[in-house]
Amino acid sequence: MEYSDFEQIECPNLNVTEPNPSQVMDFRRFSSDQVIRFNRTQTEIIRRLSPGRFITHNSMGMFFDYDHYPFAEDLDFISWDNYPLGFLSVSDCFDADEKQIYLRTGHPDLSPFMHDLFRGQSAQKKFWVIEQQPGPVNWAPYNPAPAKGIVRLWTWQNFAHGAETVSYFRWRRCHFAQEQMHAGLNAPDGEFTEYADEVRRTENEIKEVNRFLQHTEYKQAALVFDYENFWHLEIQPQGSDFKPLRLFMNFYRAMRELGLSVDIVPKTADLSAYPLVVIPCMPFEDEVFCKKIQSLKSRVMIGPRTFSKTTDFQLPEASGLNLFSRLFNFRIRYVESLPASYRENVYPQKGGNSYVFSYWKESLTTGDRPVAWYADGEPATVENGNFTYCAFFPEADFLTEYIAGLPELSVQLGQPLKQLPAGVRVRRLHNLYFYFNLSEAAYHIEAQQLKDKDVIVGAPVIAPNDLTVLCLK
Amino acid sequence: MEYSDFEQIECPNLNVTEPNPSQVMDFRRFSSDQVIRFNRTQTEIIRRLSPGRFITHNSMGMFFDYDHYPFAEDLDFISWDNYPLGFLSVSDCFDADEKQIYLRTGHPDLSPFMHDLFRGQSAQKKFWVIEQQPGPVNWAPYNPAPAKGIVRLWTWQNFAHGAETVSYFRWRRCHFAQEQMHAGLNAPDGEFTEYADEVRRTENEIKEVNRFLQHTEYKQAALVFDYENFWHLEIQPQGSDFKPLRLFMNFYRAMRELGLSVDIVPKTADLSAYPLVVIPCMPFEDEVFCKKIQSLKSRVMIGPRTFSKTTDFQLPEASGLNLFSRLFNFRIRYVESLPASYRENVYPQKGGNSYVFSYWKESLTTGDRPVAWYADGEPATVENGNFTYCAFFPEADFLTEYIAGLPELSVQLGQPLKQLPAGVRVRRLHNLYFYFNLSEAAYHIEAQQLKDKDVIVGAPVIAPNDLTVLCLK
Amino acid sequence: MEYSDFEQIECPNLNVTEPNPSQVMDFRRFSSDQVIRFNRTQTEIIRRLSPGRFITHNSMGMFFDYDHYPFAEDLDFISWDNYPLGFLSVSDCFDADEKQIYLRTGHPDLSPFMHDLFRGQSAQKKFWVIEQQPGPVNWAPYNPAPAKGIVRLWTWQNFAHGAETVSYFRWRRCHFAQEQMHAGLNAPDGEFTEYADEVRRTENEIKEVNRFLQHTEYKQAALVFDYENFWHLEIQPQGSDFKPLRLFMNFYRAMRELGLSVDIVPKTADLSAYPLVVIPCMPFEDEVFCKKIQSLKSRVMIGPRTFSKTTDFQLPEASGLNLFSRLFNFRIRYVESLPASYRENVYPQKGGNSYVFSYWKESLTTGDRPVAWYADGEPATVENGNFTYCAFFPEADFLTEYIAGLPELSVQLGQPLKQLPAGVRVRRLHNLYFYFNLSEAAYHIEAQQLKDKDVIVGAPVIAPNDLTVLCLK
Repeated sequence: MEYSDFEQIECPNLNVTEPNPSQVMDFRRFSSDQVIRFNRTQTEIIRRLSPGRFITHNSMGMFFDYDHYPFAEDLDFISWDNYPLGFLSVSDCFDADEKQIYLRTGHPDLSPFMHDLFRGQSAQKKFWVIEQQPGPVNWAPYNPAPAKGIVRLWTWQNFAHGAETVSYFRWRRCHFAQEQMHAGLNAPDGEFTEYADEVRRTENEIKEVNRFLQHTEYKQAALVFDYENFWHLEIQPQGSDFKPLRLFMNFYRAMRELGLSVDIVPKTADLSAYPLVVIPCMPFEDEVFCKKIQSLKSRVMIGPRTFSKTTDFQLPEASGLNLFSRLFNFRIRYVESLPASYRENVYPQKGGNSYVFSYWKESLTTGDRPVAWYADGEPATVENGNFTYCAFFPEADFLTEYIAGLPELSVQLGQPLKQLPAGVRVRRLHNLYFYFNLSEAAYHIEAQQLKDKDVIVGAPVIAPNDLTVLCLK
Repeated sequence: MEYSDFEQIECPNLNVTEPNPSQVMDFRRFSSDQVIRFNRTQTEIIRRLSPGRFITHNSMGMFFDYDHYPFAEDLDFISWDNYPLGFLSVSDCFDADEKQIYLRTGHPDLSPFMHDLFRGQSAQKKFWVIEQQPGPVNWAPYNPAPAKGIVRLWTWQNFAHGAETVSYFRWRRCHFAQEQMHAGLNAPDGEFTEYADEVRRTENEIKEVNRFLQHTEYKQAALVFDYENFWHLEIQPQGSDFKPLRLFMNFYRAMRELGLSVDIVPKTADLSAYPLVVIPCMPFEDEVFCKKIQSLKSRVMIGPRTFSKTTDFQLPEASGLNLFSRLFNFRIRYVESLPASYRENVYPQKGGNSYVFSYWKESLTTGDRPVAWYADGEPATVENGNFTYCAFFPEADFLTEYIAGLPELSVQLGQPLKQLPAGVRVRRLHNLYFYFNLSEAAYHIEAQQLKDKDVIVGAPVIAPNDLTVLCLK
Repeated sequence: MEYSDFEQIECPNLNVTEPNPSQVMDFRRFSSDQVIRFNRTQTEIIRRLSPGRFITHNSMGMFFDYDHYPFAEDLDFISWDNYPLGFLSVSDCFDADEKQIYLRTGHPDLSPFMHDLFRGQSAQKKFWVIEQQPGPVNWAPYNPAPAKGIVRLWTWQNFAHGAETVSYFRWRRCHFAQEQMHAGLNAPDGEFTEYADEVRRTENEIKEVNRFLQHTEYKQAALVFDYENFWHLEIQPQGSDFKPLRLFMNFYRAMRELGLSVDIVPKTADLSAYPLVVIPCMPFEDEVFCKKIQSLKSRVMIGPRTFSKTTDFQLPEASGLNLFSRLFNFRIRYVESLPASYRENVYPQKGGNSYVFSYWKESLTTGDRPVAWYADGEPATVENGNFTYCAFFPEADFLTEYIAGLPELSVQLGQPLKQLPAGVRVRRLHNLYFYFNLSEAAYHIEAQQLKDKDVIVGAPVIAPNDLTVLCLK
């Protein structure tokens, strides 16, 4: 597995057994670079021949196969295709019962995750939803219809997460070929669908809301997402049920369930203004990034497997986790992958409540302060100053309890961290607060939340599949 | 996806993504035509060189890949291979618990469906069962043994559904090669199996019954089955759990559970004499067929997706469902496919009993009379005069309630429509009535059914896995 | 399917339908012969060029694709690679709940089965464990970590089953390539893991025990395992859920649960000294082997499908089961394969307790003495003198009841046959008795077992995941 000439390098397929993960990683990097280079070549031609125009591209949700950050830099702004029901149908990051509950609404955190990820590719600035699902589609394993009111709710969700424009795919349903069963705002005969009525209503509401919107700085929580590190987990899950996106989603939804607005950011981003910085998983060592987080005053929460490999996909030569020794005093004795059917318990207080987890578990010897324990009393999560390390694959319920219990965080955020009901989410955009209710019961916005704010869309009591927009006075 | 020359046409495989469904459909039609043409060439040669002989062919059960109707026209009569246990093992049209219950008997409706389908290929005339399963076989995922008495029951079932001849495959079990584990009437050593004893008993009974058989006209129910339309559903199920045969089977078994004898017929058949005509699914528009059913006085029950596509596998250019506008006043707002795990309810009376369904649901705006409703009160089944449209993927229990509740139908049939116990079926052949009991309890034929009839095989009380034959006085 | 020239012979793949099982069998034999011949060529070269050295080879657990018996004859002794957790993860011979229970300990019978199989390849003499799992590995679907104390327990298990040497793979965990996540006794940084501490402790204990070990003849039970016959079951399972290894394992574990030490032996072995000889499945007729077991005075227990095929993978031409007619007076009416979800009951006493089984069932007409019955009262297991035939796929619980109820066997063994608690096993090696406790409760060795013996490692009460060694006084 050593090369003396570039000619010797082949694709990492057709191997007798599994290929070397270092080679697979290099192949993924090379392939991603080719996509970026091709896009750059195209944009240069277009800019030369069509000066004064903007260039965007319809990136896909649930697609992580090339590094979108440098790709986005060659566009004027990034766009993406938002299919909440199709995504849920193909996703492997939720339990089966949640896939049933949100069958016709989309999961409250899945499209938002993608929004926040794509907004991070625009440095928290302009992005478009260039294809928005406007009804049932054709390409997912199951193709249910959006519930009544949900196309309006999705449209508002898009704007709440920062989309500048929402374009529906397609205007009119096509009569022929592979996508003839993909809805449009117009039926095949040209008549508007009832979903189009929802869009028209939203259009009028947006005009109203735009009058209130004022640019306001705010930073609550950052989640660091890096494509190369994501590929690491895909190449070497180490357990058949270790689903990379589920790990990121669990951290993301925990913050969302506490009412936080999250920025998903590249590792190059300035993290200093965020009270909470979450790094769900960054397997590759990164000296520069490590120095940056070392200097943070934020609560920095780091997930399992982080900094466990060199950038060449090898184990660090020296004492295991070099970089971690700057942040923590622990040593990982061993790691293990577990089947989904095997549930263990983790205890935020010894002898107190427990939360189940599966998939991944690390055993630590540590001089840091444990803040959660496995069933055998060994540390599962540790703190050292403002740094937290979670040594297993946590579910959102454990994470919400942990984060809600951080006293300094509530102070910095200026708000108590309290769990929202299942299906209810809030998203802050500048001076606006968008409340979305995907639960089956009406949601009453709390008095404290209404204080100093005006209701500009909807009402303080939100019906299922409806929303309310508040504006800071 | 446009062609300017026949040379450009390739097979619809090795595509980067899914092929155009219109092309797949043309490929299916072309492949079917090749089978038919090859058979025709063969039969012409045989007829020329072997005048005065008859030609048949062993068609396969559970196989729908070419259009059997024109194929059958080139034979003197059609034959088919009946493997009730193997079929059940490979089938995807029943729930898992039913596959367990009927593991050693075959499902009461699966071979009968195939009989009625093949008889329809002979214009309700002569057909043979040229291979009858005579014991455990080798080719299915699981190969249980027929329960005691079941080979006799199958043989009678064959005759009850119109078979002229039943030939067992094989006479003697083969010592070698792939089918060495496939039973014969004789064991490998040449001794008769106990299944052969059942066949010998049946042979004697048949001689007796033949003395009573008199040709008698009767028509109760027709189910229209068209191969091209079946391929449509295979090419574009639109949901991973939409199993075409299950949809047809649900309609078929509902009629059978009500004691009806069903003819499965091509769309070219004369339907005028049937009190009940069921069209489970005919996606392709068909002007001629539509005119024919328009003229019917029968109760015509039409299933979902019917007339939703042009014969080129496109959406109709004009206002959606052209042809339906001659039969109904509804418009389909949208359709949706659902996972098997997702159950919805349908209500034959608002607020009354409900029945579960899954797989497929259409949302209608309609001026027709609703006769069943979804949970949200929207119409699930509508009537316009003698036409009924079922807008979802119905299970048999819903259909039996609906059909049994049609007052005019009982009158026309001259018999009340009453649900038989699970596993009990009756089949009328001319002046004979065959009762089959695949339940675990004895079945008592009702006094009303015995009236004006003689018991010529068995007794009015039928033991499990046994049968009784009545003859009109 | 007849050949007139060797050139006509092709590999049994790329067939339109399934290949002839006789051809597949020949292909398997040919492939196995190639492996054996290649190994022989290598050993001849090494012996010539490196005289005075020994030659062994790291055979793999859970791998049956060539005939290991003749292969082993060309080595000085056989070695094998023992990965208890990886094996359990990939195995298909246990129920899901057992795979959970033993996730971090390995199944109490899986590695022992392999030990006893490999020892049989050395004629019950010298063999090595040349790769012993020393922590979590990387190649199984799930890669949990061995529970505390389990690497020590495995090491003792290796010696208890006769290993002369145990070598851990690997000494130090590798920094790079495909196996970087495979544990070593040393961490990547060169520090000993806690598993290494267990190995060091065991090393000291072994020195102690070696002082006591004295060669002592004893034979309790033999299980006949033949590779060609195993391939028969792989080539023609006749039911998707018929898992060959599970059938062998069920017989093996039944004996182990009764405290027996089992030799797994080739069909050429001398069986005369074993009180109990178990032949779980030998489909191929074998005149020589049949004569040998005919002459045995032991209890000979024979499983289903035995002697049902000629060595050319055909049915015997004459009256079915020629060879069996020397041992029994039954005739097999038919066989059937059943899905795992379909459970039947077998009754060791008519109307008494029942045990469930699935997968395979034979229907017998017999003049032999039934000793277990199916639910319909037909014989499921029969005896003729000292021969027993089990006509279905038995689970271990049925077998333990049957074997424990053989009065002559306890007498010959000089010990009562009593079921051990789940997870507790004992293995005799010469004058030593090794007790292993993989249950969750402490195990008290019975007074009767302690009589005439000294405790030389551990104590009479064995904690979970611990062991005790007794020595005959």
